[in-house]
Amino acid sequence: MNEIRCDPLSGHRVLIAEGRSARPHDYKTSHVVGSRSVCPFCAGNERETPEEVLRAGDTGRWQVRVVRNKYPALSLSRQADPDMAPLSQTSLSLAEEVPTVAGEGIHEVIIESPDHHVRTTELGVAHLTIVLQTTKKRLEQIREFPTLQSVQVFKNVGPAGGATIEHAHSQLIALPIVPPSLCREQTVMTGHLQRTGHCLLCDLQDRERKEGQRMIAENASFVAFCAYAGRQPGETWILPKKHQADFIASSESDCELLAEILYQVLTQLDTALEMPAYNYMIQSAPLEGDSMDHYHWRLVILPRITIQAGFEWGSGCFINPIAPERIAESMRRQVSVENIPVKQQTPCASR
Amino acid sequence: MNEIRCDPLSGHRVLIAEGRSARPHDYKTSHVVGSRSVCPFCAGNERETPEEVLRAGDTGRWQVRVVRNKYPALSLSRQADPDMAPLSQTSLSLAEEVPTVAGEGIHEVIIESPDHHVRTTELGVAHLTIVLQTTKKRLEQIREFPTLQSVQVFKNVGPAGGATIEHAHSQLIALPIVPPSLCREQTVMTGHLQRTGHCLLCDLQDRERKEGQRMIAENASFVAFCAYAGRQPGETWILPKKHQADFIASSESDCELLAEILYQVLTQLDTALEMPAYNYMIQSAPLEGDSMDHYHWRLVILPRITIQAGFEWGSGCFINPIAPERIAESMRRQVSVENIPVKQQTPCASR
Repeated sequence: MNEIRCDPLSGHRVLIAEGRSARPHDYKTSHVVGSRSVCPFCAGNERETPEEVLRAGDTGRWQVRVVRNKYPALSLSRQADPDMAPLSQTSLSLAEEVPTVAGEGIHEVIIESPDHHVRTTELGVAHLTIVLQTTKKRLEQIREFPTLQSVQVFKNVGPAGGATIEHAHSQLIALPIVPPSLCREQTVMTGHLQRTGHCLLCDLQDRERKEGQRMIAENASFVAFCAYAGRQPGETWILPKKHQADFIASSESDCELLAEILYQVLTQLDTALEMPAYNYMIQSAPLEGDSMDHYHWRLVILPRITIQAGFEWGSGCFINPIAPERIAESMRRQVSVENIPVKQQTPCASR
Repeated sequence: MNEIRCDPLSGHRVLIAEGRSARPHDYKTSHVVGSRSVCPFCAGNERETPEEVLRAGDTGRWQVRVVRNKYPALSLSRQADPDMAPLSQTSLSLAEEVPTVAGEGIHEVIIESPDHHVRTTELGVAHLTIVLQTTKKRLEQIREFPTLQSVQVFKNVGPAGGATIEHAHSQLIALPIVPPSLCREQTVMTGHLQRTGHCLLCDLQDRERKEGQRMIAENASFVAFCAYAGRQPGETWILPKKHQADFIASSESDCELLAEILYQVLTQLDTALEMPAYNYMIQSAPLEGDSMDHYHWRLVILPRITIQAGFEWGSGCFINPIAPERIAESMRRQVSVENIPVKQQTPCASR
């Protein structure tokens, strides 16, 4: 019954996913649908999760598990629900190029540790490397499904970040479409390549390194800086230095260096913004992947400090109350930034 | 020191507005920067607000006041801050068409009542008419500023809606640019007009009336329906039936009929979703306004039930756990919808 709709006016996509209403929550909210005394992601409770599709570690003691999401935003079925046809037709008449499609896809959870850690940095660099390598391995498998066009890898930390379970986990959603953000990025990167002969993100990292005011960290394979037009205080981008379209193309040692810089940046963010809720997302090329030379993948970390209100939803603009240069300096000096805005909810602490 | 930046990759805009960190909050959060025992928006506390620019009602007993925002996201100054020039230059080299601009604009608060009401429906239809008429009058004045290109009118209700003060108020932000959402809508509407000879939103309301499953309300001048690709449960659009580009063109009696249908829809949403936090936004044509025949203004109501997490921020897709058809039925029947998802925060109740 899941379905992907396209708004005829803005072109945004919506996954209609009624099953997700029933999700239980670890965090206290006004309407607690279900509560839980047992964490389904801790070692020993493996039966509490749906089917496991990948595992890192020994049979006796696993390190990372990839399981199906119990309340998927979309899933794979044999055929589209025929009930959806009338809606598709009416949608077609208004926006011919983007018909409604059935919500065929994959929604999985990457349980990042057998232990009940909450913050990513508690995992340590060596374990975070295994998480990233396992994610990459699962993406290699998903790439083989013929109907899937893109995968969004993401992590939600803290209730203000949209997390409903506190045990460290990330997620992936594989879509039968190329989503709007990725379409737009490809258009812009292709334009820049045609105009200048260069990759936009190769040029951007050169500029950030030269200017220096937004720089956070660098190692042999990656560079990290606060985004020039950050949508939230402390939005940080981690880019591979070498031009590379797809996260899947990362080597095992790239994953190690990514874990190292990710750990460093998240530690600095925890200090500068006092343990904020956050999301991170791996923005990678579509799955077809052959002619993706114009694209350059990156990992985006988005602390969740301010709430998107009517102005942001209406205009597509954001308001950032801390200049990226100022927070980058605090992150480099490893001190708390002055005048942290009122956060939307209590920060997510370890228990 | 305010500044509007454009992201070189996505094209989104960010208002860098450091002064907003210091805002005091009515609502309990983890970092209370300031607390307050006196509501600055209540009658008798007029000295607590910045300069009043417009008022409805008698000198003795006002009904609606428009005042400058004490912590503006942008403001009008004599000239752009010259310190911003280097950033503009570097931005230009990557995205020539969208240079960084100084944050020159207007940010004002429309205090909707002298009494401490919280929810919009507590104002009643007659008073809500005055609020809308006053808003329209202020927009007519703002249109005369030569450097301003668009105005976003919006209302935030409840902490999850981004409200920091609970006394009923809406806001307007006048921008020196046409923001990304409005640019995109204009492109799509122009395309539809060229392809079909019709206005997209005239066609859309015809379709919604014919299908009926998402219809909510209708009167002589307006129609309301749940958005086909609603980004949140219960996203509702109110459209003028007559083709009209700009909210400013509404007559006094149009404002009355808008107040009537807005009151009705908000009452139905309060029942169906049990007093949700929400935003509403008036999406209207840019201020130039002469050749805007392709545009059709609307009022968008967005309940704030689900949190935008990593998937949404990364992909530009949304996940809606309640089908618009199902919530529209509950709204028409004036009953609570089944399986309301866990809300992000406590609903905003009257005190």
